[in-house]
Amino acid sequence: MNQTIETMLAHRSIRAFKDKPLTEEQIHTLVKAAQSASTSSYIQAYSIIGVEDKEKKKQLAELAGGQSYVEKNGHFFVFCADFNRHHATAEMHGTDVTETTQTTEKFMVGLIDAALAAQNASIAAESMGLGICYIGGIRNDLEKVSEVLNLPRFVIPLFGLCVGYPDQDPDVKPRLPLNNIYHIDEYEQDANAFKKGLNEYDEVISGYYTNRTGGQRSAGWTSMMAHKLATPVRTYMKKFLEKKGFPLK
Amino acid sequence: MNQTIETMLAHRSIRAFKDKPLTEEQIHTLVKAAQSASTSSYIQAYSIIGVEDKEKKKQLAELAGGQSYVEKNGHFFVFCADFNRHHATAEMHGTDVTETTQTTEKFMVGLIDAALAAQNASIAAESMGLGICYIGGIRNDLEKVSEVLNLPRFVIPLFGLCVGYPDQDPDVKPRLPLNNIYHIDEYEQDANAFKKGLNEYDEVISGYYTNRTGGQRSAGWTSMMAHKLATPVRTYMKKFLEKKGFPLK
Repeated sequence: MNQTIETMLAHRSIRAFKDKPLTEEQIHTLVKAAQSASTSSYIQAYSIIGVEDKEKKKQLAELAGGQSYVEKNGHFFVFCADFNRHHATAEMHGTDVTETTQTTEKFMVGLIDAALAAQNASIAAESMGLGICYIGGIRNDLEKVSEVLNLPRFVIPLFGLCVGYPDQDPDVKPRLPLNNIYHIDEYEQDANAFKKGLNEYDEVISGYYTNRTGGQRSAGWTSMMAHKLATPVRTYMKKFLEKKGFPLK
Repeated sequence: MNQTIETMLAHRSIRAFKDKPLTEEQIHTLVKAAQSASTSSYIQAYSIIGVEDKEKKKQLAELAGGQSYVEKNGHFFVFCADFNRHHATAEMHGTDVTETTQTTEKFMVGLIDAALAAQNASIAAESMGLGICYIGGIRNDLEKVSEVLNLPRFVIPLFGLCVGYPDQDPDVKPRLPLNNIYHIDEYEQDANAFKKGLNEYDEVISGYYTNRTGGQRSAGWTSMMAHKLATPVRTYMKKFLEKKGFPLK
């Protein structure tokens, strides 16, 4: 077990940061680490917005559902899928990439590219002793987030990333049993084995929450998911994507 | 600069591996590292298939467009967005998550979750001295890939990941200029500055390819993108996703 893997296995989201901004050097190191991630056929289909303006951070914290750590951290990044750059290359060389960037396939590429880059930035930050927290909450209102960040067409903000000096020390959250996530040669076909794994996991998670909340909360993972996912959220997404140039054909 | 960040900055895809399989311990370490990545609201919406069967690896190599390193490596993973598990939780608790998993939003969550996990596995592998290569080529024919891996509904294979002992030592591929990827407070509004950055990058990439191919190839990045993206690929994706339970509403 080396230091890099130890860092990964010790990951937990940090939601309280010391009032100490990252230096420009730290920020650039994180961006360069992000850029070093693999990218589909060299397409580099993402952009990263670093938000320094206090008013903008406040607005984003509100849009994300009132998450104070979006405002108070060492630095706040927004990762975006970005094909604006590729439309610019088409202009430069007299081609048309519209049909391609309208496909579901290319949208998937943009999301995957951006996520690979973000995870590199996250691991780089944690290796420097910093804490991180992804903010999916910005997807509550991508129209307004796009206005705040002045994003052009073909750019879709996907999630925020808070980075900073941790001011809390939460426990690592237990993950699904390895054999529920990892299958050999084919997907687990034994429904009983599959559900047995989930039941065992429920006990672990129930204990974790009981311990963490002093008995206030004790639901297992399957119950949390079954109830949480019973109600769809962010159902405007399809229309928003269409408007921004991604009809997902 | 610490060892973890040095590992990231030294990343380049490896497409030739020694004939030495990973041990089960190595594989489990990579999967656990993957699982330690952040996951949207604890949803863990992905699965990883490790392909050991030689015939299956051969089939996948062919489906990916004849990429020999899909067959010859230390281990081959396929990362999938997976909501099958969440449908199982709904059955267990008498709810219905169909409407939610049909949304574009949740599909995005599955892609992002899977990609964050995959990048952790990649960095973990590289920190162990192994090399990696993502295989988007499996998306050439996801219907057949799903058959080979016996994937149920609500599971979408996204990309493969070759891992193994490197049998080549290629150069690091230069990324876009930092200020073309990274914007402060708002997206770069100066089109000239934006294109100037791309032109400078073209010179770097042209030099890189000229050097790498002994002058056989010297296109810049913008020209590559403008021409490559002029023709859409994998246009069956929308229909495939619909069939597998993801109409992207």
